[in-house]
Amino acid sequence: MSYRPETPLLDRVQSPADLKLFSDAELTRLAQELRAETISTVSQTGGHLGAGLGVVELTVALHAVFDTPQDKIIWDVSHQCYPHKILTGRRERMGTIRQQDGISGFTKRSESPYDPFGAAHSSTSISAALGFKVAADLGGHSPTGHGDAIAVIGDGAMTGGMAFEAMNNAGHLKKRMFVVLNDNEMSIGQPTGALSSYLNRLYTEAPLQDFKAAAKGAVSLLPEPFREGAKRAKEMLKGMALGGTLFEELGFSYVGPIDGHDMDQLLPILRTLHDRATGPILLHVVTKKGKGYAHAEHAPDKGHARAKFDVVSGKQHKAPSNAPSYTKVFAEQLIKQAADDPRICAITAAMPDGTGLDLFAERYPSRCFDVGIAEQHGVTFCAALAAGGMKPFCAMYSTFLQRGYDQVVHDVAIQRLPVRFAIDRAGLVGADGATHAGSYDVAYLANLPGFVVMAAADEAELCHMIATAAVHDDGPIAFRYPRGEGEGVEMPERGEVLEIGKGRMIREGARVALLSFGTRLGETLKACEALEARGIKPTVADARFAKPLDRGMILQLAREHEALITIEEGAVGGFGSHVAQLLADEGVFDRGLKYRSMVLPDVFIDQASPKAMYDVAAMNAQHIEAKVLDVLGVQVLDQRA
Amino acid sequence: MSYRPETPLLDRVQSPADLKLFSDAELTRLAQELRAETISTVSQTGGHLGAGLGVVELTVALHAVFDTPQDKIIWDVSHQCYPHKILTGRRERMGTIRQQDGISGFTKRSESPYDPFGAAHSSTSISAALGFKVAADLGGHSPTGHGDAIAVIGDGAMTGGMAFEAMNNAGHLKKRMFVVLNDNEMSIGQPTGALSSYLNRLYTEAPLQDFKAAAKGAVSLLPEPFREGAKRAKEMLKGMALGGTLFEELGFSYVGPIDGHDMDQLLPILRTLHDRATGPILLHVVTKKGKGYAHAEHAPDKGHARAKFDVVSGKQHKAPSNAPSYTKVFAEQLIKQAADDPRICAITAAMPDGTGLDLFAERYPSRCFDVGIAEQHGVTFCAALAAGGMKPFCAMYSTFLQRGYDQVVHDVAIQRLPVRFAIDRAGLVGADGATHAGSYDVAYLANLPGFVVMAAADEAELCHMIATAAVHDDGPIAFRYPRGEGEGVEMPERGEVLEIGKGRMIREGARVALLSFGTRLGETLKACEALEARGIKPTVADARFAKPLDRGMILQLAREHEALITIEEGAVGGFGSHVAQLLADEGVFDRGLKYRSMVLPDVFIDQASPKAMYDVAAMNAQHIEAKVLDVLGVQVLDQRA
Repeated sequence: MSYRPETPLLDRVQSPADLKLFSDAELTRLAQELRAETISTVSQTGGHLGAGLGVVELTVALHAVFDTPQDKIIWDVSHQCYPHKILTGRRERMGTIRQQDGISGFTKRSESPYDPFGAAHSSTSISAALGFKVAADLGGHSPTGHGDAIAVIGDGAMTGGMAFEAMNNAGHLKKRMFVVLNDNEMSIGQPTGALSSYLNRLYTEAPLQDFKAAAKGAVSLLPEPFREGAKRAKEMLKGMALGGTLFEELGFSYVGPIDGHDMDQLLPILRTLHDRATGPILLHVVTKKGKGYAHAEHAPDKGHARAKFDVVSGKQHKAPSNAPSYTKVFAEQLIKQAADDPRICAITAAMPDGTGLDLFAERYPSRCFDVGIAEQHGVTFCAALAAGGMKPFCAMYSTFLQRGYDQVVHDVAIQRLPVRFAIDRAGLVGADGATHAGSYDVAYLANLPGFVVMAAADEAELCHMIATAAVHDDGPIAFRYPRGEGEGVEMPERGEVLEIGKGRMIREGARVALLSFGTRLGETLKACEALEARGIKPTVADARFAKPLDRGMILQLAREHEALITIEEGAVGGFGSHVAQLLADEGVFDRGLKYRSMVLPDVFIDQASPKAMYDVAAMNAQHIEAKVLDVLGVQVLDQRA
Repeated sequence: MSYRPETPLLDRVQSPADLKLFSDAELTRLAQELRAETISTVSQTGGHLGAGLGVVELTVALHAVFDTPQDKIIWDVSHQCYPHKILTGRRERMGTIRQQDGISGFTKRSESPYDPFGAAHSSTSISAALGFKVAADLGGHSPTGHGDAIAVIGDGAMTGGMAFEAMNNAGHLKKRMFVVLNDNEMSIGQPTGALSSYLNRLYTEAPLQDFKAAAKGAVSLLPEPFREGAKRAKEMLKGMALGGTLFEELGFSYVGPIDGHDMDQLLPILRTLHDRATGPILLHVVTKKGKGYAHAEHAPDKGHARAKFDVVSGKQHKAPSNAPSYTKVFAEQLIKQAADDPRICAITAAMPDGTGLDLFAERYPSRCFDVGIAEQHGVTFCAALAAGGMKPFCAMYSTFLQRGYDQVVHDVAIQRLPVRFAIDRAGLVGADGATHAGSYDVAYLANLPGFVVMAAADEAELCHMIATAAVHDDGPIAFRYPRGEGEGVEMPERGEVLEIGKGRMIREGARVALLSFGTRLGETLKACEALEARGIKPTVADARFAKPLDRGMILQLAREHEALITIEEGAVGGFGSHVAQLLADEGVFDRGLKYRSMVLPDVFIDQASPKAMYDVAAMNAQHIEAKVLDVLGVQVLDQRA
């Protein structure tokens, strides 16, 4: 039974322009309706709940005060964009969110003019807002100088280095722009880092008498008589007592902290800023993630992401799992390895839950480090830990490791330091869509000298690769594994140490060899079943290593078969490209070989189930079967007959 | 005539341990000798001068107070490491610096135990120092807890986001560690004894008002006119001078500012910090880049990098150039394009000189943006500029663009925004060695959907590619070009707009086709001359595009030749891999083709001349010739006969 809130005001909103007709009291009620609507819609679809609930009032207030889409609101990461989507013409499509052919769970330029800039990775919004403002001033879209830019960024995202880089640049350019710091004391995990402590002090230790000239930059922006009375102004000034010096020193006028759930503060302050700001403004808004829905507010993750759920009970409808997730297998095996080896330590960039390192941290708190949303620092921190004699496991999602790429090259690979990269969410990831796809790690790691690059075909293989990484001290080593459940294979008690650069034969066949790198092995074997019905029995091998390649095995496969097909969950430039380079160098192509490389196609694939995404990518069993038939020149007309 | 300073004290230093035997007065004289020695040695070799001269006293003081190599000094970027190298056993080898088989111009782990962490890209040192400290505490190299870590970082490098990420993490972990902020753009006049006194008292119960008075004195020493790019860091530093609030708020104890050329301040303060620090310390040291050598101090770049020079006159011995540099050609063409198109703007990350954008900024100051050492922000800023209707040219070195890789994927490519990437220093770069090699950009860009990736074969081609990028609005476009002089070809007045995805035939031949991507075209043509003497006349084509490939031309070359060889200045995974993927998909290998892909080898190549580095890479004319002969099975015995 779905819960249907009454939403008389929301029903009158076709676009944000309609908000201009509402009184403040109506806007306040509208926010309540928007909250109920958000809860209702996410209960039916699943998705990100807590972040949106925390910014319901802010969403209404920003759209009421600014002129979107002429003014650009940039939602950092954009987990919190659901209320924004409901207000900006997508209410009817919320039931399709994060589903195939539905709307995205993130802001997306192609979806709406109210989404001027897509986001899904953290800390980009200030750079984007500054770019829009500068473009407007330069007349990018005429007329010159028209259009505000507002970045809404969480306290967690503010720890990302690029947010600091952008503040530093914006403070220098001195252009009118707005950064709304949505301080909910929560990134996805618990807040970490000195900045978090600093922000906490800003609103917990504000002594009344400390108001002075400290906030002088912001004072000139204050409305003389607040519409809602002097009380609000006083409370605001109280907050400004500490002045937000950190931000002031970066050239921003600091305003806040204010209660981000109080429309009587939000509306007048935003109006004042809108009317009077001449330079960069940081508005510090304190909110509660999951606000207004007890089952979210009281959850450890504040309702960050939810399966479909019952609104009244809060109970989530999760499908039972058949096998442990790769993430959990990673965490449990690493804990076992760490029991024997005190030099093993683990690093996450603000994703302790997502990477499974929350389990590791429970067991070995002194050897687990959450560096914040800071992949760049995290990678170099690992490099020095390795140089200092430790065995760091750097656990990051494939897509987020892109943030630390230069550090991987410059600090890890060039120095040949034994950092262990545990690369989760490799390949296509489902509902998070293109922005979270782990498509490039093999390509961008396997051409770095001295790197060892592995992919696990199943969860038992993952155990072996962890054990291998634990003892591999001669340079960096990476192992990748996908999102979701394992294959359900029998698990070893402890992983075995693999020989570096050796693949394994799975089954001997004839004519065609299928060489899999990663978890497409399961689909490959399914394809073989179908092919056997046609009298074709392929050889199947698991490469295990994209680097170093198992040259002997690959050349033998090429020698003994008419055709060789590589299969991997990554873009061109990775495993298959290295195999092709080997085959070319060895002159294998000179004498003819039906070689094909199945890689992710040259498109960004929108959200769907992982299975459906691999259908789009043409990398499931039937596609492998079809590729074999095509390569061997087998007519498939018989099937239609 | 080389200048030979008298160095009686320096002559007694075999290792930093010898400094423990010196009095403070002797250490002060030693620093003077070290400065003279640094000037002398760089005058004979060329290299980075100004940065080293700025930290001569700091180098002596750190080694005198701390116990290196047990304690780890991490020099950020490490342009300033020459005096450190002289003191740590490499004095005799300084004549080989930045030369083939010589010592590196940067710190390098393999070179000395006194170089615990190599560096060449900016802003990594705090992460590294934190990693070493944590590793020591965890017993990475026993005994547990032994060994300090000191990062020395410039005010420019402090603007890099990862430095902020590291500060945030270090402030949270609260471990004893030292960040020496080497503020070398703040010129300091008279020694500030009051500050010295204050800092000595700071750890012996200094009353707060004394600190404030001292800090006030320091503020007055701040110069007003700062150059673009460094200015923001400078304004931050103003705040710090009043107590270092920014760093205090990130959990560091702030000490400073002190005169970094006054040993009577440096030594007692470092000793006090060494003896008493319990948590993270930020020591703010003010120095002068180029200090003590008038020809450096008064140069616009403060003697940043120098060719060999005469010590007395300061005159540099530069070889005359035969052709304009690619960098200059880029700048001049972009200026021409911008004259007609007000939407063209240009972005650099703290490299206005290196990218040629200083020239663009002179002409179009309002359309040129130096974002600081902030490639991440810079790329996303460009993405939003493009979304806002501008035509941003993002000019970065290949190796530094790695810093913005996630932003290239997430903000530019996924949103298909028309950012123009001008990728300088593509391929091998000479004296800067492996850390600056532009080896990976083609691999990491060409597999991104919607990207156009070009490489210029010569400076005229570069002009065409700039013109092409200027009008290409359908998604991102990149063009790469190498360090150094062009080929000396005739230059067009204006570049022509190229057809996207079309290569060009250079010469028609037979049997073997050489398909070049980038400036190896010159070597390829040289190889052809040699081959013609053997009766082999290869076909030569310039691919121009790695993406989209010129499928028609490539398939035709494959069809009409016995052999096809691709040549590029990049690692495997790039152009050649995309060609191989095409040939495989089209079944070209099925019937046999002598296909080879000449790419950079799987090693990090140490510094040498670019020509010598390409010899190591086996990518010069004689290697191309040898590859052709090998592929065609031509015996080369005739030559020896």
